[in-house]
Amino acid sequence: MRAELVMIGTELLLGETVDSNAAYLAQELANLGIDLYYKSTVGDNWLRMLEVLTQALGRSDLVITSGGLGPTMDDQTRSCLSALANRSLVLNPTAEAQIRAYFAKTNRPMSDNNLKQAFLPEGAQAIPNQWGTAPGILLELGNKILISLPGVPRELKNMFQASVVPYLINKTDGNRLYSRTLRFVGIGESTLEEMVKDIISNQTNPTIAPYASFGEVKIRITAKAKSSIEAEALIAPVEKQLRETLGQWLYGLEQDTLEAVVGQMLIERKETIATAESCTGGLIAHRLTNVPGSSNYFMQGAITYSNDSKVKILSVPEELIINYGAVSEHVAKAMAEGVRNLANSTWGLAVTGIAGPSGGTGEKPVGLVYMAISHQDFTKAEVHRFTGNREEIKQRTAQAALNLVRVTIK
Amino acid sequence: MRAELVMIGTELLLGETVDSNAAYLAQELANLGIDLYYKSTVGDNWLRMLEVLTQALGRSDLVITSGGLGPTMDDQTRSCLSALANRSLVLNPTAEAQIRAYFAKTNRPMSDNNLKQAFLPEGAQAIPNQWGTAPGILLELGNKILISLPGVPRELKNMFQASVVPYLINKTDGNRLYSRTLRFVGIGESTLEEMVKDIISNQTNPTIAPYASFGEVKIRITAKAKSSIEAEALIAPVEKQLRETLGQWLYGLEQDTLEAVVGQMLIERKETIATAESCTGGLIAHRLTNVPGSSNYFMQGAITYSNDSKVKILSVPEELIINYGAVSEHVAKAMAEGVRNLANSTWGLAVTGIAGPSGGTGEKPVGLVYMAISHQDFTKAEVHRFTGNREEIKQRTAQAALNLVRVTIK
Repeated sequence: MRAELVMIGTELLLGETVDSNAAYLAQELANLGIDLYYKSTVGDNWLRMLEVLTQALGRSDLVITSGGLGPTMDDQTRSCLSALANRSLVLNPTAEAQIRAYFAKTNRPMSDNNLKQAFLPEGAQAIPNQWGTAPGILLELGNKILISLPGVPRELKNMFQASVVPYLINKTDGNRLYSRTLRFVGIGESTLEEMVKDIISNQTNPTIAPYASFGEVKIRITAKAKSSIEAEALIAPVEKQLRETLGQWLYGLEQDTLEAVVGQMLIERKETIATAESCTGGLIAHRLTNVPGSSNYFMQGAITYSNDSKVKILSVPEELIINYGAVSEHVAKAMAEGVRNLANSTWGLAVTGIAGPSGGTGEKPVGLVYMAISHQDFTKAEVHRFTGNREEIKQRTAQAALNLVRVTIK
Repeated sequence: MRAELVMIGTELLLGETVDSNAAYLAQELANLGIDLYYKSTVGDNWLRMLEVLTQALGRSDLVITSGGLGPTMDDQTRSCLSALANRSLVLNPTAEAQIRAYFAKTNRPMSDNNLKQAFLPEGAQAIPNQWGTAPGILLELGNKILISLPGVPRELKNMFQASVVPYLINKTDGNRLYSRTLRFVGIGESTLEEMVKDIISNQTNPTIAPYASFGEVKIRITAKAKSSIEAEALIAPVEKQLRETLGQWLYGLEQDTLEAVVGQMLIERKETIATAESCTGGLIAHRLTNVPGSSNYFMQGAITYSNDSKVKILSVPEELIINYGAVSEHVAKAMAEGVRNLANSTWGLAVTGIAGPSGGTGEKPVGLVYMAISHQDFTKAEVHRFTGNREEIKQRTAQAALNLVRVTIK
């Protein structure tokens, strides 16, 4: 099945918005094993829309459009489909009922313009839209399929999942792609890839693809299967192999975040944490407290930029700063111990470093960061040399510090 | 001049990448006053590329392509242009010199494949590329113009600015769009629009467009002019009118951030600040310390999630918490005073609130936030009721707190 996307809307040609619908639909079609050959974008101009749609329907088996289904004058997809299919617009009772139900549910008055949205080309099926007013349109023309969805991303995505995916699975060989993402931290992409290259090259279904993103590496395992149960049977043994080799760097799956994983570990152990930050300036605490329920284990944070505050708040011995400098292993450890004592928490986490762009020296360059974690039984430290601009160094430091917590407490 | 974009690359049809080049080119064409009628995307398939390009050149005056100019087998734009224009590929000496110079500059060995990149359709001009190996192609075919740029966004954008913009200005009436963005905080979009609707409706050149983004409202003033001097003369009086009406909410221009603006105010006054955060969990300090040089005025931050830490670190009187609750005006003020005294800073800023999703009550719902700012001469507080999820409430709180600093110290 050859597919083509036609994105409709003048705003898409002005460059003000990046078209996230197109990327979403492309990815979903790939998941369904359907090849996408062309993608076109056209403004809210009736004749140009008709021209583009005529061409699309000529060369492709499946055409999916987005946009132009609203209630206003701008929205001309319905009438364009009518002309294209040579079928008149008729009131579709299913569509009408859906629109009326939507307005009843949201308790808003319905205008005549909204009823216009229920007029679909004769013989078309309405695609249900519980998330807005515009029903989608499904039109089978001989062996060609034309699907029109609204341009609002939330509506488009929900409708695609609820109605279009099942329809297309039925039209294809029944296989689709299922994937699982494993997330790793503390290991580089090339090292990881080297370690699992035999596993990767022996696999065709599922396939295994590592890719780097900021501060972490992901592996996506993708299986082609007729059901999620069949997919799970294909993915599970490969996942097991990967876990055996890479387990110590694996922190989570799918959309997991490092702060949520660390939080969960602390909850399970009924332990608490406090943070002392210099160069990250509050970012570590911000990430930890993004997690709902974090007030159960995050006790307090100290952002001690000045030497004075390190001494005064965290009880860092002044001679450590004088002898070793504020950016040093000794001071990092003293900060971690200090904040743990101050907060009376199970764990104390501290970072001190040089985020730049100024403040670096030959001996202590921008990107040099010491971090330490303290428990009543021990305190340990790490040193890192990060690259990037000020914000990137802050982000990389926070990521490494949260990982230090993860590997220490587990 | 009718323009059309043709984006080339199979990766663009897999949905893995969002096509930022297309939005960039669309916006730049709009700035040049050139109407964009169509945008097409096609994979690295020679015949389909030729088909799409033939159609584009048939219906548009200016066709700009992106991608397919690299040294590998995938990269077929050059040969496709050759077929399209019916002109053979010939070694372009300017292109060759540029490629050789690029490799010399970056001290890397040049392969034969790279020399392939210097073969352009006969009569084409090479568009200089100092940022990579692929020269662009400019081909005038009768009254049609075809411009091919590489797909790497950094190369495409730099080449477009350096060579294509001057070329197109010359081909059009010489006018282009110049814009200025004014940034406002603490006022809603509809209120702002209502206040300046007369100014907006009286304007045609420049035009004035307000739009809301997260936590702020922007106004873009856009002038059509032949030069930046002419544009400035058009924009300045309108900007003056807007400043007169909306000055108290105006915090910056173009890419300014609230944290940088606040930082600059503190530097000018040789003043310092310290923060005490409850519900924002370090986000305010994180934003303040994202600004290079913030260590000159940001003294320290305390993240006091627990009542205990509010009392112990910030010296908030325990009876205030007992009598009014941790989320109260009294406690916000005491936190602001406490952190100012602790840090010995000019200003103390504090927030306390309920970020949710749990922890809200009928009397104190999720989203209720008190914030206070303290100086040796006074302490003042504000109350807000924010909506959104946990992260959004944190973000909105931080934005309002930084604005509280701005309006208080100015």
